[in-house]
Amino acid sequence: MTDDDDLTQEINGNGGDDLVSPQDFTYEHPFEFELGGSIPNFTLRYETYGKLNADKSNAILICHALTGDHHVAGRHRPEDKRPGWWDHFIGPGKAVDTRKYFVICSNCLGGCSGSTGPTSINPATGDPYGIDFPVLTFRDMVRAQKLLIDHLGIRTLHAVIGGSMGGMQALIWEIEFPDMVKNVIAMACAAKQNTQATAFNTVARAAITQDPNWLGGYYGELEGTGPRSGLAVARMMAHITYLSDFSLTSKIRRTPEQLPGGRIATGEFLRKITFPIESYLHHQGDKFLDRFDANSYLYITAANDFFNLAKDHSLDQSFAPVKARTLIVGFSTDWLYPPWQNREIVIALKRAGKEARYVEIDAIAGHDSFLLNSPHLYENTAKFLDGE
Amino acid sequence: MTDDDDLTQEINGNGGDDLVSPQDFTYEHPFEFELGGSIPNFTLRYETYGKLNADKSNAILICHALTGDHHVAGRHRPEDKRPGWWDHFIGPGKAVDTRKYFVICSNCLGGCSGSTGPTSINPATGDPYGIDFPVLTFRDMVRAQKLLIDHLGIRTLHAVIGGSMGGMQALIWEIEFPDMVKNVIAMACAAKQNTQATAFNTVARAAITQDPNWLGGYYGELEGTGPRSGLAVARMMAHITYLSDFSLTSKIRRTPEQLPGGRIATGEFLRKITFPIESYLHHQGDKFLDRFDANSYLYITAANDFFNLAKDHSLDQSFAPVKARTLIVGFSTDWLYPPWQNREIVIALKRAGKEARYVEIDAIAGHDSFLLNSPHLYENTAKFLDGE
Repeated sequence: MTDDDDLTQEINGNGGDDLVSPQDFTYEHPFEFELGGSIPNFTLRYETYGKLNADKSNAILICHALTGDHHVAGRHRPEDKRPGWWDHFIGPGKAVDTRKYFVICSNCLGGCSGSTGPTSINPATGDPYGIDFPVLTFRDMVRAQKLLIDHLGIRTLHAVIGGSMGGMQALIWEIEFPDMVKNVIAMACAAKQNTQATAFNTVARAAITQDPNWLGGYYGELEGTGPRSGLAVARMMAHITYLSDFSLTSKIRRTPEQLPGGRIATGEFLRKITFPIESYLHHQGDKFLDRFDANSYLYITAANDFFNLAKDHSLDQSFAPVKARTLIVGFSTDWLYPPWQNREIVIALKRAGKEARYVEIDAIAGHDSFLLNSPHLYENTAKFLDGE
Repeated sequence: MTDDDDLTQEINGNGGDDLVSPQDFTYEHPFEFELGGSIPNFTLRYETYGKLNADKSNAILICHALTGDHHVAGRHRPEDKRPGWWDHFIGPGKAVDTRKYFVICSNCLGGCSGSTGPTSINPATGDPYGIDFPVLTFRDMVRAQKLLIDHLGIRTLHAVIGGSMGGMQALIWEIEFPDMVKNVIAMACAAKQNTQATAFNTVARAAITQDPNWLGGYYGELEGTGPRSGLAVARMMAHITYLSDFSLTSKIRRTPEQLPGGRIATGEFLRKITFPIESYLHHQGDKFLDRFDANSYLYITAANDFFNLAKDHSLDQSFAPVKARTLIVGFSTDWLYPPWQNREIVIALKRAGKEARYVEIDAIAGHDSFLLNSPHLYENTAKFLDGE
C-alpha cells in the first residue's frame, strides 16, 4: 500500500475524532515457524477501537497490507496531521462502526512498527535478528495474531477484514480457525500469489540485497545506515504496481510539456529530476526509508511470494473447513491482484459449498483503490457485517 | 524487448538461411540535437537484406525497440546459434519478403551496438562521451536514420516498420518525412509515452544512477566496470513489463511447490535464489550486462519518456502532414502500451483524414507478442505491404 500524501488528504476527509494508544502483547513462550526455526518470545503491537461487549461477540480483526501497521484509525495525539490508514472506513458511524464493533489491528509478526521482526533484539546475541530472523509465512503471522486474540479473551471474531496481504491473511483465518471466524471481508487479493507479483518482489529484493550498504543483512547494528538506495528503488517500483496509469498521471502537478525547461546541451539532465513523475516517485521512495526496515521488507515480500492456498490441495479442498460467510471485493483497475484472482476465490468457496459473494468495484486507482473513499465499499461492508 | 532464450528458440523455428554482415555509415558533419548540443560526426551501424531494385522503390526500413539492434534477420556466420531478432518475420518468403523487398535496419543513434552513443569516443576529449553525450529524442534518432537512407540513394521507402519504440519512430517518419514514406506498420506502441511506462523508466534510471559504480556516469573509461547491479535490476524490472503474468509463469520450469527444498531455519534463503521466477529473472538481468551499456540505457529510456506526438498540437493536427497508409497492430495482453493507446493512433489518423487501419491480435505474451510467431501478424503485414 502507498503512503501517499494525496491519498492521505483524501482519507483525511472523514476525520478521526478518537484518540488511540498502541499497546503491546508479549507472548512469553517459544514460537515455532511453519518453515522451521523458532524465537524464544515475541511481541505484537496493536490498537483497539470501540468497546468489547459483555459476551465478547463484537470483535473485528483488521489485517494490514504489506507495509501497513496497527495504526488503522484515529489519532495518537490531537495534533497528529494524519489519522490511521483506514480511518475513513473504521470509526463511529463508519462502514466498520466502532459504536457497534470492537476493532483490533496488530502489526504483523516480522514487521518493523513495534512487533517482533528482523529489527528486534535477538536475546541469544544481544544484536538485532537481522537476517537471522526465521523465514516466515502468512500462516505464521496469522498464528501469532491468534495468540493475541486468545490473550484478549476473545473466542469468536465477528469478522476478519483485510485488503491485499491483509485479505490473504483473512482467508487463512477462516481456513485455519473456522470456529473463531463468523465473517470475512477480503479485498484486492488472491488465493495465490501470482508470478508477476513475485517477479516484482524479486526485483525489489535484488535491489535491496545488491545495495552495498545491505552488508549481507547485518546493517542493523549501525544506526542510520542500511540499504537506503536499494530500499527506495524497491519502494518506487512497488508504488507503481499499487496504482493505475490514470492515478499515476493524476499525481503529476506539472505537465511534461513544461519540461525540460529550455534547451539542455548535455547529459546533465540525467543527474537531475526531470520528468514530472520522477519527483513524485523519488519522494515516495524517500518517505518510505523513514518508516520501514529493509530486512523486514525482504521477509514480508517473501512471505507474500510463498502464499498459495492451493499448494497442498485444490483450492476448493483448501476451503473445506471454512464456516464463515465470505465477501470478496475486487477492483476493476487492480492489475497487481486483478479481478479474476478475486473472483477465483469466490468460485472455489462456492464450489466447496460455502456462503460467499463477490463485489467488483469500478475504480480508477488500481490496487490501492481499497484504501480510498468508496461509498460502494462502505455500503457493502456495513450490510455484510449486519448479516445481510 | 526481451532477449529470452525461450523466445529465441521459438523464433529459431523459421531458421535464417542468409548470411549478413553489418556495415557502417559515417556522417562526417556536425549533427545538431533537437534539445540542444551537437556532435562533430556520427556512425550508424546497419544491415541490409534482399536487393534494392533498379528504381529504388522496394526499400523497407525496420526500426528496433529499446534495447534492440541492427541485426534484425539472418546470421553473421553459419555457426551462429541465434539469427537476428526478427528473423521469423523478415526473410525470403516471410511476412516481410526479402525476395521482394530491400530491408534496412540500423542501430539507433545513442545506442551501444556500433552506432554512436555514450560509449563512443568523444573526439574533443579522447574519452568516451559517457554522460556528456547530448540528450537525444526519437526525432534525433529518425533524423540520423534519414541521413543513412539519403546515403543509400533511396528517395522513397516502401515502408517503415517497427514495434514498441520502433513503432513510435515509424510514426515520426511518416510525420517528418511524408514524401519519403508510402506505408507504415507500427506495433505495440503509442502516440505518447504513458505515465506508468515513464514511472518504470524512472525507477530503472534510479537503480542505475544510485549504483556506486555508475561513478556519476564516468565509468566508461574503466574496462569491465560500470553499474552492473543497477543495470541488472533495471533490466529485470523492464523484463516484467514486456511479458504477461501468463508468459512469466510459463518460464518457470520448477513449480513453487518444490521450493523451498526442505525446512529452512533462518534467513539464509534470502541469500540464495529461492522462487522459481527469481533464477529466470536474474538470468535475464545478467545476460543483459554483456550486451548493453548503462548510460545508453539512461539516454534511450529518457528519449522514450520525452516521446509525445501530441506535445505541440492535438494528435490529429500532428498527423496532418502524413501521406502514408498506416497499419497499427495492438496486442490484447500488452499492458506496457495497451490496446487503447494503439487504437488512439488510428482514431487520430482517421480524424485527420488519413488512410489507417487497426488490427488487434489476441496474444497471451504481453508487450513482446510482436516479437513472437503470429500467422495473424504475418498475414496482415504481407497484405498491407502488397497494398491490400
